[in-house]
Amino acid sequence: MIVVMEQGASQQDIDHVVKSIRELGLREHVITGTERTVVAAIGDDRAKSKENIEMLPGVEKVMPVLAPYKMASREVKKDRTIVPLGGTLGAAAGGKQVCLIAGPCSVENRTALLEVAHQVKEAGATALRGGAFKPRTSPYAFQGLGEKGLEILAEARDQTGLAVVTEVMAVDQVELVAKYADVLQVGARNMQNYNLLCAVGDQRKPVLLKRGLSATLEEFLLAAEYIISRGNPQVILCERGIRTFETYCRNTLPLAIVPEVHRISHLPIIIDPSQGTGHAHLVPDMCKAAVACGADGLIIECHDDPEHALTDGAQSITPKALGNLMKQLRKIAAAVDREI
Amino acid sequence: MIVVMEQGASQQDIDHVVKSIRELGLREHVITGTERTVVAAIGDDRAKSKENIEMLPGVEKVMPVLAPYKMASREVKKDRTIVPLGGTLGAAAGGKQVCLIAGPCSVENRTALLEVAHQVKEAGATALRGGAFKPRTSPYAFQGLGEKGLEILAEARDQTGLAVVTEVMAVDQVELVAKYADVLQVGARNMQNYNLLCAVGDQRKPVLLKRGLSATLEEFLLAAEYIISRGNPQVILCERGIRTFETYCRNTLPLAIVPEVHRISHLPIIIDPSQGTGHAHLVPDMCKAAVACGADGLIIECHDDPEHALTDGAQSITPKALGNLMKQLRKIAAAVDREI
Amino acid sequence: MIVVMEQGASQQDIDHVVKSIRELGLREHVITGTERTVVAAIGDDRAKSKENIEMLPGVEKVMPVLAPYKMASREVKKDRTIVPLGGTLGAAAGGKQVCLIAGPCSVENRTALLEVAHQVKEAGATALRGGAFKPRTSPYAFQGLGEKGLEILAEARDQTGLAVVTEVMAVDQVELVAKYADVLQVGARNMQNYNLLCAVGDQRKPVLLKRGLSATLEEFLLAAEYIISRGNPQVILCERGIRTFETYCRNTLPLAIVPEVHRISHLPIIIDPSQGTGHAHLVPDMCKAAVACGADGLIIECHDDPEHALTDGAQSITPKALGNLMKQLRKIAAAVDREI
Amino acid sequence: MIVVMEQGASQQDIDHVVKSIRELGLREHVITGTERTVVAAIGDDRAKSKENIEMLPGVEKVMPVLAPYKMASREVKKDRTIVPLGGTLGAAAGGKQVCLIAGPCSVENRTALLEVAHQVKEAGATALRGGAFKPRTSPYAFQGLGEKGLEILAEARDQTGLAVVTEVMAVDQVELVAKYADVLQVGARNMQNYNLLCAVGDQRKPVLLKRGLSATLEEFLLAAEYIISRGNPQVILCERGIRTFETYCRNTLPLAIVPEVHRISHLPIIIDPSQGTGHAHLVPDMCKAAVACGADGLIIECHDDPEHALTDGAQSITPKALGNLMKQLRKIAAAVDREI
Repeated sequence: MIVVMEQGASQQDIDHVVKSIRELGLREHVITGTERTVVAAIGDDRAKSKENIEMLPGVEKVMPVLAPYKMASREVKKDRTIVPLGGTLGAAAGGKQVCLIAGPCSVENRTALLEVAHQVKEAGATALRGGAFKPRTSPYAFQGLGEKGLEILAEARDQTGLAVVTEVMAVDQVELVAKYADVLQVGARNMQNYNLLCAVGDQRKPVLLKRGLSATLEEFLLAAEYIISRGNPQVILCERGIRTFETYCRNTLPLAIVPEVHRISHLPIIIDPSQGTGHAHLVPDMCKAAVACGADGLIIECHDDPEHALTDGAQSITPKALGNLMKQLRKIAAAVDREI
Repeated sequence: MIVVMEQGASQQDIDHVVKSIRELGLREHVITGTERTVVAAIGDDRAKSKENIEMLPGVEKVMPVLAPYKMASREVKKDRTIVPLGGTLGAAAGGKQVCLIAGPCSVENRTALLEVAHQVKEAGATALRGGAFKPRTSPYAFQGLGEKGLEILAEARDQTGLAVVTEVMAVDQVELVAKYADVLQVGARNMQNYNLLCAVGDQRKPVLLKRGLSATLEEFLLAAEYIISRGNPQVILCERGIRTFETYCRNTLPLAIVPEVHRISHLPIIIDPSQGTGHAHLVPDMCKAAVACGADGLIIECHDDPEHALTDGAQSITPKALGNLMKQLRKIAAAVDREI
Repeated sequence: MIVVMEQGASQQDIDHVVKSIRELGLREHVITGTERTVVAAIGDDRAKSKENIEMLPGVEKVMPVLAPYKMASREVKKDRTIVPLGGTLGAAAGGKQVCLIAGPCSVENRTALLEVAHQVKEAGATALRGGAFKPRTSPYAFQGLGEKGLEILAEARDQTGLAVVTEVMAVDQVELVAKYADVLQVGARNMQNYNLLCAVGDQRKPVLLKRGLSATLEEFLLAAEYIISRGNPQVILCERGIRTFETYCRNTLPLAIVPEVHRISHLPIIIDPSQGTGHAHLVPDMCKAAVACGADGLIIECHDDPEHALTDGAQSITPKALGNLMKQLRKIAAAVDREI
Repeated sequence: MIVVMEQGASQQDIDHVVKSIRELGLREHVITGTERTVVAAIGDDRAKSKENIEMLPGVEKVMPVLAPYKMASREVKKDRTIVPLGGTLGAAAGGKQVCLIAGPCSVENRTALLEVAHQVKEAGATALRGGAFKPRTSPYAFQGLGEKGLEILAEARDQTGLAVVTEVMAVDQVELVAKYADVLQVGARNMQNYNLLCAVGDQRKPVLLKRGLSATLEEFLLAAEYIISRGNPQVILCERGIRTFETYCRNTLPLAIVPEVHRISHLPIIIDPSQGTGHAHLVPDMCKAAVACGADGLIIECHDDPEHALTDGAQSITPKALGNLMKQLRKIAAAVDREI
């Protein structure tokens, strides 16, 4: 880290900073500028607190040099991680193939889910999404079918070969969900639920980690670091939109995160245009944009009868619309040397 | 809810909306304007999905009329809720007395905690804060003492009479934390951890609920609604700053939420100026502002030796500084007809 | 507009609202719901103040039904506006062709500008960007060459046929800039400089209007409305990123605005991936995404020697990189039935 | 500035950075850490572009050490600036006295303005606000009385002794407004209208500079630097709320800016709780909070008959409400060793 001293900082202040740097097990390097003195702390300070330095007398600010995550960074692993999703259709995130995960927001009943599973497979999906445990803003809203929903998802996989991606909301659900699902999804609201991150890090199924709606990229990668550091390297990052002042969309979808993640991390990143916009009429164009800028996958809310969907009807597209969209997506993928 | 039709909406579109409103168990009221047709849906639609209407053909937008929370609203309870915090010093949030909760970010060791407990009591606090389970952005940072920390907190209460406020991070910690603590804190990162909200709603200790860093006020009150609807009405709201583009502070502290919560809810609201700014030098002035605008309490990070704090040193003030601050806070409280 | 009354609103309150609605020249329609009374005001209220209703006793909130802009909306003009940019290469925004505007952030000297103009034309651009008047955050930074810069731009047009797009910062520069340029750019910082909007509305050259970095889409279209309502319908909207909490990019580029503008307005919208990200390494992927989601054009900062650029070097790509990028952009454009 | 090299940066990359630093007229200092090489550039780099370094090969990021503003900073002037506002009542911002500026959003007619001027003086104000030129989001809204409005304001000053504060929207209005007004206000939308900043810097009346709704504090002080660097040191900063995702208020009022400005600048800062919240019912509590945290003044929208106000009725309080509020404000001011 770099410690910038205030203009009027005394020699005593500087000595104090140097002493504190040494207490942290780091070495100091003092640079006397024309207007400021700057003290560089040398050594791995990832686990050190820059705050204790920041509040010392005479210190103006402390600037970190090293990113706080390590195992999620590209520096420790140059080649891109490919995470197989499961199922029998070869679904994977991070390779040349852009993976397509589609399905309803929540599992509503057996018939409808099986029907939509076949339809999204037909349209080109290799994985099925669908919530059995639903995090809902209101306590009065439909909360999901629970284990019954998981059973239905597993049956859909058996029938179609699609990998099953579904959300796990709590530590005590991890074992149950891992029993049925191929990929465990950690939702945006739980991105900093550290106990849950540790729990999914302790099991062996891949994890689809959604970005919190106001999480920085650094916090996002640190959440992945929690999972990886427990021994599970199979993390798929998922951008699902951030909260801004904008009102024409439910969330703002910041696609520049795709090339940035590819630059600083080895993990695959996929895009959720459904949550990322909140409106079905914006979904197809955002799918195209995501593929064009290099996303490793798409996760799309797809419902046969959106106007009767129990959850998220307004942002779901039909399997038929998905099928039509795929024609353009294939051309765009080819243009950027990918396949879908 | 109010359904605004597009300019060119057909009679068929309007009929479809009317049919869907009836399917939801509501009554419709069609208003033909000069430029738009508007359909009002009459009845309690709190648990109904406006999304399914929103995606119907010819619909431009749907605007909710009713707030989605009920038990947290002022409409169902006109008088302000007073939540006793516990301890033997009469600590309570929501009455004439502005409650002062102070203590270290995390419990670091027995000696230091007991020392600071006596000091903050001396300064005027009636409740003690301190984390035993710590949610940390990085997996490599100090994660708290766990149950040992809870024991130390309980000992501090026995010695001082201060109520103990401490965070619970997971469902399986609720029973343990409730055994030692007087008030269970749900942190900002867990504001939408619904399983945790239900768990603290199922026990009988008061809950201090921190606002998520990009949660809307409506989502904040819905999180409270989760707790209340499980049978625990003792909820204290806590504003701890929101995430914005600002960089001189770690978070932006939006104090206007205090009079707004008092207008629309009966729950008490307290302010955390430590998290709310991230810098010790901003804390005293924000304490003054909070008391001046009617906050029902303050929760302040206080450390005897901030530069050696294991966590959050940069935003902790000393007990001595707190004591000095109290003189001004008492005058400000008196000016707005409160006490501290 | 829809006026939602508070739960306890009296008949007198409702009568007051009705009277105020009539004073505004509108008609009222009172709907008595199960929990609330709602009063709809019927008529064109675009120029009426909803605020005066909002503060009446017993009123909870007022929700607008009509968008406040009119001439910029799709309702008054169904077919998409095509704005010819000038020059001799057929540059236009809004048609099948995606227009490519490229060039340096600022005009630095004659030789360099002419050189880069030929290069971007070679790469496929049909219009040249370059600032002669530069809005700079710091008073100590390079402020542009002024009229000398305009002369150089005009010479570049004469040599290449490229249309010239350049910024006008003040009312008293409009005549001068319009003398040399083909398209007058209003920068993001001036999006709500209403005197300037009126001035560019009063002349006849096309206007490229950049979105303010925290302007809502409604405010953006109202700024366009200022220009159109003065008699100049040739407005090209330009998204250049919004300010959010994100730090890996200078601005967040919200591409969903492209399909949304196409839905609610007839105006063309182009994307500025240079300002929109702030980093050259993110620009190519955002160009691809923009074309894929239907943008009507790209405006890209391009510099032959970015490391010696006087302004915005970090977000400029080289003409050579642009040329390479065009190969992929052409394929993506074809995939979405466009050309570039 | 501090240049952080990528982990794999070559010696050639480092040499290139060193060469570029020297080209900027700065000296370099290379520090070889355990994981990164860092190059410090020594000298005054305020007017140098860190961007050109940022895009060099092998560079990860560049961190500025010096703030880019100088004359607005506390380093060049330790004592706080006091700006007299004019009029005959001793109005000034920056001293012990908290100045109170009150009046209608816009001047609507002579009778009403004179009436409200006497009323706000009675309530305790020493300066009068009121817009003659109004920046309006919609071209169809009331745009102000222009010079006629200025004449009325001047007459109100003659009758009451109140200093007159009014907005100037364009360079060609500066002379006219300066003829009538005591303080020239630059509105939030024009905070980065650099031509206007220069124009108000070139005249001698004090300037009330409002913060742009998504301007960083650094950009805010750089806007002040524009004015000061032209020779006018009489700048009063005004916080009027920032744009965030919050919906219960029109803007979010970040009061922590008050102590932060006092820490890093010598300029006075006042608060606009009317724009800062957008709702009259939030104004009084935000006034109290502002005074409590050390604001140097308040600028409040005050209207005798808010429900018939031509502009901003919803956020205006009555002179009578202001009078009542003053009783509490005086006590709070006394508590923090100020007067009002």
